[in-house]
Amino acid sequence: MEGIDYHDGERSKAEFDVEEMKIVWAGSREVLEVSDRMGRLVASDEAFRKDNRTMLSRKDLFKNTLRKAAHAWKRIIELRLSEQEASWLRFYIDEPAFTDLHWGMFVPAIKGQGTDEQQQKWLPLAYKMQIIGCYAQTELGHGSNVQGLETTATFDSQSDEFVIHSPTLTSSKWWPGGLGKVSTHAVVYARLITDGQDHGVHGFIVQLRSLEDHLPLPGITIGDIGMKFGNGGYNSMDNGVLRFDHVRIPRDQMLMRVFQVTREGKCVQSNVPRQLVYGTMVFVRQTIVSDASSALSRAVCIATRYSAVRRQFGSQNGGPETQVIDYKTQQSRLFPLLASAYAFRFVGQWLKWLYTDVTQRLQANDFSTLPEAHACTAGLKSLTTSATADGIEECRKLCGGHGYLCSSGLPELFAVYVPACTYEGDNIVLLLQVARFLMKTVSQLGSGKQPVGTTAYMGRVADLMQCCCAVQKAEDWLNPSVILEAFEARSARMSVACAQNLSKFANSEEGFAELSADLVEAAVAHCQLIVVSKFIEKLEEAIPGKGVKRQLEILCNIYALYLLHNYVGDFLSTGCITPKQASLANEQLRSLYAQARPNAIALVDAFNYTDHYLSSILGCYDGNVYPKLYDAAWKDPVNESVVPDGYQQYIRPMLKQQLRNARL
Amino acid sequence: MEGIDYHDGERSKAEFDVEEMKIVWAGSREVLEVSDRMGRLVASDEAFRKDNRTMLSRKDLFKNTLRKAAHAWKRIIELRLSEQEASWLRFYIDEPAFTDLHWGMFVPAIKGQGTDEQQQKWLPLAYKMQIIGCYAQTELGHGSNVQGLETTATFDSQSDEFVIHSPTLTSSKWWPGGLGKVSTHAVVYARLITDGQDHGVHGFIVQLRSLEDHLPLPGITIGDIGMKFGNGGYNSMDNGVLRFDHVRIPRDQMLMRVFQVTREGKCVQSNVPRQLVYGTMVFVRQTIVSDASSALSRAVCIATRYSAVRRQFGSQNGGPETQVIDYKTQQSRLFPLLASAYAFRFVGQWLKWLYTDVTQRLQANDFSTLPEAHACTAGLKSLTTSATADGIEECRKLCGGHGYLCSSGLPELFAVYVPACTYEGDNIVLLLQVARFLMKTVSQLGSGKQPVGTTAYMGRVADLMQCCCAVQKAEDWLNPSVILEAFEARSARMSVACAQNLSKFANSEEGFAELSADLVEAAVAHCQLIVVSKFIEKLEEAIPGKGVKRQLEILCNIYALYLLHNYVGDFLSTGCITPKQASLANEQLRSLYAQARPNAIALVDAFNYTDHYLSSILGCYDGNVYPKLYDAAWKDPVNESVVPDGYQQYIRPMLKQQLRNARL
Repeated sequence: MEGIDYHDGERSKAEFDVEEMKIVWAGSREVLEVSDRMGRLVASDEAFRKDNRTMLSRKDLFKNTLRKAAHAWKRIIELRLSEQEASWLRFYIDEPAFTDLHWGMFVPAIKGQGTDEQQQKWLPLAYKMQIIGCYAQTELGHGSNVQGLETTATFDSQSDEFVIHSPTLTSSKWWPGGLGKVSTHAVVYARLITDGQDHGVHGFIVQLRSLEDHLPLPGITIGDIGMKFGNGGYNSMDNGVLRFDHVRIPRDQMLMRVFQVTREGKCVQSNVPRQLVYGTMVFVRQTIVSDASSALSRAVCIATRYSAVRRQFGSQNGGPETQVIDYKTQQSRLFPLLASAYAFRFVGQWLKWLYTDVTQRLQANDFSTLPEAHACTAGLKSLTTSATADGIEECRKLCGGHGYLCSSGLPELFAVYVPACTYEGDNIVLLLQVARFLMKTVSQLGSGKQPVGTTAYMGRVADLMQCCCAVQKAEDWLNPSVILEAFEARSARMSVACAQNLSKFANSEEGFAELSADLVEAAVAHCQLIVVSKFIEKLEEAIPGKGVKRQLEILCNIYALYLLHNYVGDFLSTGCITPKQASLANEQLRSLYAQARPNAIALVDAFNYTDHYLSSILGCYDGNVYPKLYDAAWKDPVNESVVPDGYQQYIRPMLKQQLRNARL
Repeated sequence: MEGIDYHDGERSKAEFDVEEMKIVWAGSREVLEVSDRMGRLVASDEAFRKDNRTMLSRKDLFKNTLRKAAHAWKRIIELRLSEQEASWLRFYIDEPAFTDLHWGMFVPAIKGQGTDEQQQKWLPLAYKMQIIGCYAQTELGHGSNVQGLETTATFDSQSDEFVIHSPTLTSSKWWPGGLGKVSTHAVVYARLITDGQDHGVHGFIVQLRSLEDHLPLPGITIGDIGMKFGNGGYNSMDNGVLRFDHVRIPRDQMLMRVFQVTREGKCVQSNVPRQLVYGTMVFVRQTIVSDASSALSRAVCIATRYSAVRRQFGSQNGGPETQVIDYKTQQSRLFPLLASAYAFRFVGQWLKWLYTDVTQRLQANDFSTLPEAHACTAGLKSLTTSATADGIEECRKLCGGHGYLCSSGLPELFAVYVPACTYEGDNIVLLLQVARFLMKTVSQLGSGKQPVGTTAYMGRVADLMQCCCAVQKAEDWLNPSVILEAFEARSARMSVACAQNLSKFANSEEGFAELSADLVEAAVAHCQLIVVSKFIEKLEEAIPGKGVKRQLEILCNIYALYLLHNYVGDFLSTGCITPKQASLANEQLRSLYAQARPNAIALVDAFNYTDHYLSSILGCYDGNVYPKLYDAAWKDPVNESVVPDGYQQYIRPMLKQQLRNARL
């Protein structure tokens, strides 16, 4: 059956130009070309095999990851890959590794927080991987609240050094990736103490291990924190624990771009604006949103392809059963996730623009859009990662029993993905930050200060409080301005209602705490509006390719009306729409699913994922699922012998009623 | 710090008698006594250790499970444990194993579908474990649709045998637990063919492996299907693949209680009612509901205890930070799950009664309540398993980053639990069955046929279509009859609306397919009503113990109002309540959370779980979390050496810029 493509029929049904859609998904023809080339490079290199990943013991898995990282670095050097190419290479290798933190956190931290001299000293070493670094912030007892960190960096003016120390068990650094076994250096966050005075948390470059024998330096205790969720998952990463016993570092290893300690121990704020830190946050969270669309689209690709292969019920006169993708229950769960993947892709592309915009403004000392950009990225990080984590698991369930097999790729994808809901800001904590910004925006509405960017609609609050949805028939819901108004009105009314309820409290912090669950809901409504509006804006661009724009319109409408259906309580309780209009939206949604159905396989083909990257038998390009599942089963280590190890000691004595004397 | 109980303060806050609550949770004083005794027995036996489970390779894990199963069976014999005690013992051992299928499916299948002679022949062998059996139904290409199975059992009248055969790859048996490596026998489901005629799917007892050397018998291919979700998880189970190449079994190994094949090859329906099968389904699904409350309560216990230990933000004047359990956002996610655990417990206890009732009726040839009982258990299986799977993952997120560590117990709990959403009836397929029953019920309303049991409220449909919720202030939502009416009205109105929309279709099957997503929502509304109403009925019983009933009232109200809040769109769009009343429900909910707060730790203590069973550092009874986390980390195999295996080959050449010549 090799060579047969079981999805041929599905692919021929597509009503749009898949190659053009690939460009839209990638962001540009150039990005598509690079990512496609790197995807194939990884897929064709045996050294990057990953189909045995879930069968390895922790030690073997970890060692295998070290091997892949070394091989990747070798290839990067040999092929003289650009930074962009190297980054795509790592993306397709698709295994959490210490290099993620070295390139993603350690290098950016030095770039963002180091002085020019510090950058000149450390970056060349890091760029050549002569040192390997990680980002040691989180502690055993301190995650979300960075200001609560306990590690201390006490300035000793006699020796011109900082003394880095872990005063308590809970101050142990805990979680940093790459820390446990690999990193030679770390950016360590610690409370700066000079003359007995606490100056808050700052970053310090600390060497952890000898560059000669890799042993921890004196006063330093390091280890791995142990097994995490999933078979492979993040167990290829050495998330670590680190304790300091009065470790001394030279003064010039404090990252001093913004805040400096002089030779005399005096603390000086530099003329570089503190707000730069937020610019970095915007950058990091923008990549997280982009990763969300990658992870969700990958799960959706697997579930969509398998839903077209799998058949259950509905056989007529002994003919084949119905493809499960033809069931409305399947469509109503799967297609909104397909639409979400595209929605997150576009909002991610827009965030990239936002980061550039913010950076340019910061360089021109314009901080005016920073709070809005910060709230917006915090909210979108929260929204997209939560939806993606849930969406991956939903895709797994949509594959029925076989989704539970590691060979489906979905359990691993879920286990690797879920920490995104917690790292770089717990999703609920982030929504509360958004809510705080929304409440501030509402409170300033009367003051003449115009809300900017994604909160600009709040400027029309008077209209939005009393507008009436004009929908009279199902097709009216296809009108982007109707959708936009409904989402704006819902968000504005929820924020205003929260603000009104808050105003009843004498102590506004108490009120904020008491009403926090409602505030989170208002923040979600605002973030969903952003995603919907950016999808609509995308459709206002010129999009070439036969039928491409039409498909995106369908997906945009599915995304918006699916949200409307799922959060219909918000829309009804704020009076933004009527029950009748809600029912019409639902009716329109069914019709949109029918329109998406023939294009479903082509819409996931447009992600341009190799079988290697998908790492899923259920999602393989040719759809030849069952023979591959069957063959894969025999590779499990327990199938090495027909009679299992343990039969003589444990099974036979049981069957032969000889357990009484058995040694167990 | 040994001996300190960090939850002492929390426990002293409790406003009720925890020991009495333990009895309510267990169901009776006797059950509490037995389960408590077995829980301690397992916890105190080193042979049942499971803290190293996630670090074992697949082969070691599997072998370790064989050892535990043998040890358990030895203890059962030595201590002459009763069936009930043995079953609790296995519950606390808490590791999926072939014995689950032997006792839970193989034995019941023979009991339920075997003739008296067959039972006399096979059951004694199974009871003594002289044979080990599994339940071979699902095939590689056939899960939900049992009638689509492809395996054949063709009667050969010459030899008086059945020929069991796998005609296609997709007919390979796939998934049965205990099949891959351990079972000597199986109940195999296959299409009965006599004289070229297909008589549908029936069960056959087939010996798979030699009782002498455990090798598969001629014509039989067996293996394990490979790795599944999670580190340990279900990988301790040998879910298997099985192919038959014209395997012959004597005629008397077809399970013939209901349907018989004579020596001449004639097919005869016995006088035993077919409906008995549904009685078994009610039994199996009732145990699944009971398991849901166990799994959810376990996750809630871990998250609640850790939420009282963990502190983030809110430090004042350098004092301790705020316990995260004091945040409303934490409460609004955690306490509804705590309430759900209790709700599922009570509906599970009621299902036990229902099963007894149905069985007695069946024996008296009264089939009148069977369809309703069948729909009800199918719906409750779906509702409780979906909510539990989601709830476990929510509890994991509620523990922040540390919930991602295997030592939190939550990743394993999730990985082991999620298949419950798929096995024994996919949850969406089951809801469609409930919907079908509801539509039938609605269609018969005019006919004078009174709906029974959990659908009795449909008899009051005329009232329910027009009743108005009487709530005027938040406290009104504490009235059970107000809650019940709102849930009944919502469910009735959703079902009636579906029925009306269905009637617009000329072809009712087409209509059912087209509207299936709406029908699923109506089914969910009906099932939620059942859980709420059974919780309310529970509170009408006499419940002894200081403050116990009061706490249960609070939990019941939290459960109902949380559902109302989450599904407020249903209530509003059907006009069952007004936006103002929805807002009052939300207000009341906040007040209920405040009331539950001081009792939270005691409410999870009432589950009476040992630290061994919880298998979670975050959930340990004494709350001494951080030192235990720290100590556990060092036990990971990668910490056996300070410098990791692979340093010389992969890390050092990278640091020393010598990769070019390295062999990778």
